[in-house]
Amino acid sequence: MDDKELYSFPGAYLRDFCTAVFVHFGIGAADAKLAADVLVKSDLRAIESHGVARLHTYFDMLAAGRINPQPNLKIIREKASVATVDGDNGLGLIVGPKANEIAMDKAEQHGSGWVSVRNTNHFGFAGYYPLMALERDLIGWAMTNSTKLVAPLWGAQRMLGTNPIAIAFPGLNEAPIVIDMATSAVAYGKIEIALRKNEKIPKGWIVDKGGRHTTNPQDMIDGGAQLPLGSEREMGGHKGYGLASMVDILCGVLSGANWGPFAPPFALRQEIPERSVGKGIGHFFGAIDIDGFIDKAEFKKQIDDWINVFRSTKPAPGTNGPLIPGDPEREAEAIRSKDGIPLIKPVVDELLDISRNTGIPFEVI
Amino acid sequence: MDDKELYSFPGAYLRDFCTAVFVHFGIGAADAKLAADVLVKSDLRAIESHGVARLHTYFDMLAAGRINPQPNLKIIREKASVATVDGDNGLGLIVGPKANEIAMDKAEQHGSGWVSVRNTNHFGFAGYYPLMALERDLIGWAMTNSTKLVAPLWGAQRMLGTNPIAIAFPGLNEAPIVIDMATSAVAYGKIEIALRKNEKIPKGWIVDKGGRHTTNPQDMIDGGAQLPLGSEREMGGHKGYGLASMVDILCGVLSGANWGPFAPPFALRQEIPERSVGKGIGHFFGAIDIDGFIDKAEFKKQIDDWINVFRSTKPAPGTNGPLIPGDPEREAEAIRSKDGIPLIKPVVDELLDISRNTGIPFEVI
Repeated sequence: MDDKELYSFPGAYLRDFCTAVFVHFGIGAADAKLAADVLVKSDLRAIESHGVARLHTYFDMLAAGRINPQPNLKIIREKASVATVDGDNGLGLIVGPKANEIAMDKAEQHGSGWVSVRNTNHFGFAGYYPLMALERDLIGWAMTNSTKLVAPLWGAQRMLGTNPIAIAFPGLNEAPIVIDMATSAVAYGKIEIALRKNEKIPKGWIVDKGGRHTTNPQDMIDGGAQLPLGSEREMGGHKGYGLASMVDILCGVLSGANWGPFAPPFALRQEIPERSVGKGIGHFFGAIDIDGFIDKAEFKKQIDDWINVFRSTKPAPGTNGPLIPGDPEREAEAIRSKDGIPLIKPVVDELLDISRNTGIPFEVI
Repeated sequence: MDDKELYSFPGAYLRDFCTAVFVHFGIGAADAKLAADVLVKSDLRAIESHGVARLHTYFDMLAAGRINPQPNLKIIREKASVATVDGDNGLGLIVGPKANEIAMDKAEQHGSGWVSVRNTNHFGFAGYYPLMALERDLIGWAMTNSTKLVAPLWGAQRMLGTNPIAIAFPGLNEAPIVIDMATSAVAYGKIEIALRKNEKIPKGWIVDKGGRHTTNPQDMIDGGAQLPLGSEREMGGHKGYGLASMVDILCGVLSGANWGPFAPPFALRQEIPERSVGKGIGHFFGAIDIDGFIDKAEFKKQIDDWINVFRSTKPAPGTNGPLIPGDPEREAEAIRSKDGIPLIKPVVDELLDISRNTGIPFEVI
């Protein structure tokens, strides 16, 4: 096996493998299948950082008994259109979809539903949840806080996660608009890639441990921090910091989870925060019944129009013009559903390691 | 009067003047007072771009009969926690606060309230609305779409407004966290200031009419466009574009207002869009009852803790460390409530012009 070569796997094969791994740890079959679907959907949509590349981390956490394989979700507080759910320290990949269902049920009954979740863990890629809402013809919304990686503007310390925001709007004949974005300037994975390739990174992605701007990706590993979207004061770095704070408070503080620098780590190798101010990490899900605002068919017709108008924007030089949010992921999904999911050797090696440890067969074809 | 000198006015004096101007156009006394409060609150909080500096534009629009002075707000569609309001082409400064009240009433009854508004006009600074929610001990949320100024990433054309997002969270002993941000890289006012001072602007604020990056602010006037938060692909410009799109769709499409490049202009001198796809511009208000999620006192205690933890972040070199969102505006309000609101000569001249045209006395002290 060559380090740079790509190995292709059918989505269904990876889904079955992940399901078996989760079942191995005592997770029920339906829950295991759900969790596997969240992971593999991410790979299908070419969001590799949140797909099976993370399976070994879930494996480690489950093996170490840090995650409850059979969580009993509880609504601990509720009003008609809102609720807080305790995830019983389950896999976020299971807690997330179930809490999102509660938000969607509330939306169908009361026009909108908003569910904060505490005592949960990493929930995969945020875009999965609004995609669930689209299947029920709702507008869906999802956010989560996460382990500290990002410094607030003018800070020299990791204080916030990359705290993503995802939202999706259904079209009529056009594919939906799916927005899914971290509130940091860049995904952590891009810093890792530069490090592996021994390349410099653009100014504005990270600061070193002293809080100074740097283009050396190694400075991130050596105690540095990512910068929020906008990066600098003059370019709106306070806005990215504001958005990350909003996500942190709606997910963490409102649910009674840990917030800010106290969000527990996702991986075993990461340090345990010095304080605990709540339970687990936090998510926040929203669902909106379009019919509560406007005739649904009319809304979708207008979304189609919106998409066509924005697609025909005059392109900037050297580009093909603006994309519609969700276009690249949907195009990747169409290709990968047919041709398979390409994985790099280090990821394949991790899956083989899990196979050896669990006895669940995994074959490189 | 010197062009660079500042003239100071008590907030109450400006509020009375604005109220009288609105009454002059047939707006009822209570509505006029409300609209004046939105404008002057903006100046008190040092958001000068959205304060009395805009009064002449409202004056022009009212004088031209382009705004309905006595709007009859109607809920045109509704479910328990959501509604769409038709603003009857009223001043956004009146329609906005009233629609926001509906969202807050729903939050108190059903846990949350979400109101989209169509057939409305510019609503002042977005932060006003979450500040209203804080007075009722709710989490408040506000967005609006607006006249096109911003190009989508990879676009060479104005397609979106600066589409702000505002949200506020109450503390117990600490002042609230108030996030209020445009989704463009920078406020339009900063480009105007550079133009007036004959200074260059940083790369990443605007593109020229050909879609090329430029540091000459005159290129904005000559048919250029602002860039979304993040500015470039590599720095997350697609995220700012995604956020601006989200605001545009929730405010414009969901309410049945005009969206994207078709949002009608706020000022007489701006071009009328080639198409109309709805009524007026659109807002979106949200209110959340904290008690529906968590004990309110516990939430506020945690917010105090959050504020203190973030305030004590290790500072980046050459800074005093991160601010808490809302700090600068609140500090300005404390000073300006005592010492008065400083206005530059061009703004004072506009108020004097309104005074001459309406016969309402305005004196520079």
